[in-house]
Amino acid sequence: MNSAHFTFSVHHRDAGSAARRSTFHTPHGAVEMPAFMPVGTQGTVKGITADQLTATGAHMILGNTYHLTLRPGEEIVAALGGLHAFMGWQGPILTDSGGFQIFSLAQRARINEQSAVFRSHIDGSVVELSPERAVKIQETLGSDVAMVLDHVVALPNTREKIAEAMQRSVRWAERCRTAAKRPAQAQFAIVQGGLDVELRLQCTEKLLAIGFDGYAVGGLSVGETPAEMYHILSHTVAALPADKPRYLMGVGRPEDLLEAVGHGIDMFDCVMPTRNGRNALAFTDQGVRRLRNLKYQRDDRPLEENCPCPACRHSRGYLRHLFMAGEMLGPILLTAHNLTYYQRIMAGARDAIAADRFVEYRQAKNQCWAAGDETASLDSSPEQ
Amino acid sequence: MNSAHFTFSVHHRDAGSAARRSTFHTPHGAVEMPAFMPVGTQGTVKGITADQLTATGAHMILGNTYHLTLRPGEEIVAALGGLHAFMGWQGPILTDSGGFQIFSLAQRARINEQSAVFRSHIDGSVVELSPERAVKIQETLGSDVAMVLDHVVALPNTREKIAEAMQRSVRWAERCRTAAKRPAQAQFAIVQGGLDVELRLQCTEKLLAIGFDGYAVGGLSVGETPAEMYHILSHTVAALPADKPRYLMGVGRPEDLLEAVGHGIDMFDCVMPTRNGRNALAFTDQGVRRLRNLKYQRDDRPLEENCPCPACRHSRGYLRHLFMAGEMLGPILLTAHNLTYYQRIMAGARDAIAADRFVEYRQAKNQCWAAGDETASLDSSPEQ
Repeated sequence: MNSAHFTFSVHHRDAGSAARRSTFHTPHGAVEMPAFMPVGTQGTVKGITADQLTATGAHMILGNTYHLTLRPGEEIVAALGGLHAFMGWQGPILTDSGGFQIFSLAQRARINEQSAVFRSHIDGSVVELSPERAVKIQETLGSDVAMVLDHVVALPNTREKIAEAMQRSVRWAERCRTAAKRPAQAQFAIVQGGLDVELRLQCTEKLLAIGFDGYAVGGLSVGETPAEMYHILSHTVAALPADKPRYLMGVGRPEDLLEAVGHGIDMFDCVMPTRNGRNALAFTDQGVRRLRNLKYQRDDRPLEENCPCPACRHSRGYLRHLFMAGEMLGPILLTAHNLTYYQRIMAGARDAIAADRFVEYRQAKNQCWAAGDETASLDSSPEQ
Repeated sequence: MNSAHFTFSVHHRDAGSAARRSTFHTPHGAVEMPAFMPVGTQGTVKGITADQLTATGAHMILGNTYHLTLRPGEEIVAALGGLHAFMGWQGPILTDSGGFQIFSLAQRARINEQSAVFRSHIDGSVVELSPERAVKIQETLGSDVAMVLDHVVALPNTREKIAEAMQRSVRWAERCRTAAKRPAQAQFAIVQGGLDVELRLQCTEKLLAIGFDGYAVGGLSVGETPAEMYHILSHTVAALPADKPRYLMGVGRPEDLLEAVGHGIDMFDCVMPTRNGRNALAFTDQGVRRLRNLKYQRDDRPLEENCPCPACRHSRGYLRHLFMAGEMLGPILLTAHNLTYYQRIMAGARDAIAADRFVEYRQAKNQCWAAGDETASLDSSPEQ
């Protein structure tokens, strides 16, 4: 930890679980944890202003190195004052490294020990991303927390391929650690190893030997069952140091957040609230609501009583109308609602941990959600 | 005028022009005039929340009867509390009658003396709109000001066709006047007559004989030259009563607003600031700016100094990035900027009139706009 710029304090451990209540101090302010980071892929959380984002209760957000280096380019972001000034967000920002996008989004990616070479999904231009370059881009963007470049492979896969990619990810992490020069930027490593506990533990051990400011669990929520994910998560988190932030990348559903908090995870990011919001799906204490449903046509109630978000000043019938009429305000309002809801879940979790009643809180929330009468298949794959 | 619910007071007449400073009191608050009404076609000003709309400085907005009766239907709007509650806008609302949309948007419209019968542009269903029905829809929506149903014809056209449509519009206006039952709703007539001064004056005389709470000039800004428009406008406005609001429908560019204010117009609506904003065009004191232009790539200045809108907290380079990346926030921010700019023009006009320096104000603004180094063809046709 760059202790002049970052401190991480665990205030309280829940009596009934591994959940912990902590604060992460960064050069752009404090993040109360467990925390959910909205995804601001291209220098904006899609559809809402920085003020509206602040009003959701978010403390820290995520930006995407892959997207920003392709467009507008990190030098332009720097010329316009760095990522915080560029997007008008004064709070902390974490940037991912691009490893996942090389795997999921880039065209014709060829990866060797030196770097990944691929074609931009925007204009087909050839781009090279090495560990050193991933560090440099993130330093130029000026994020508070940078992620190391990792080598992500498709699952299911052979144990040999998964092990190779994990070992390369460790070597790349070490190169990233060596390359990092910016004092006011923390660097987090990413534990890989697929669904193999042994590989996960090997990876964790090697990363701990290098030493990072925080540790992420990557390569989950990519199609495995929740049970598989929690099996890996519980073994991995148990091996992580208690005095560093723990970040579960790309997860997830509200129930996933609380389950992972119970395993001792401190930080999350996911496109689920924003992307599903843009597609008329609202998260509430009564489960999900698909606002295009005819039953909401004349429903004059707000989505949720006592929700402070701008969507909940309107009726469900109005929100439905906006989506049926193809109006931008529908996606805007449900984005604000869903992000507000996710932040309220996390705020509730923080309070519950502090009061040693996190297990009851999680149970009560799960009961609420299970009692909902609508279902939906949720899409959490990262932004295109 | 329903004097229990509406009053119109002219405070001051400009010494150098026919411009006037007035206040229109409605059941939902006062409108300082001259005033520009943002267009909220389908129960939302596209892309911004009611709070953001208030922050632009708007006092009164416009809603579209044609669109709202097709979707979601006025009965549903009423079931959800009426148009004000539906869209969360507590200020005054004017609704147009649908006459222009029957002309411009409806499919296979057949118009006879009784009504217009057409097919919905959304689903092809057959809809009938008579003067009485146009009144009833607007009463059900609960707008503060309702417009009479008029018969709009294409220009250029034969004098006979234009005269026939004008005479039918007068008969329909009379039927609307008879049909109106809602005390808390004012009703404005619409002067038609194409580019023929004699027909315009005949229409005005007949409408005045019926007697309305305000008078609109319709059928302009449909392809004629600015000189033709102002020729018609000057003769028409001169025949309108001084003690009633005067509304120029569907106009227009910033220079058109000030020209028309100088002729004595009090109210405007136009999609120009919103539609062009969604397409990356900003209105400023330095003329228009097309934000996709490469020259803005590294421009760290705001669109305008001293503009209080949310777009002007960012750099031009960031706004360009949003449009190049296809991010919703670009249209959102430029909508807010352009509406704020239009409101600032009108606020400046009101101050200038009160100080008897409107002609200098208009001249100074026209010089600013003419000095801009970008040009653009602007689209003001009503919302589809």
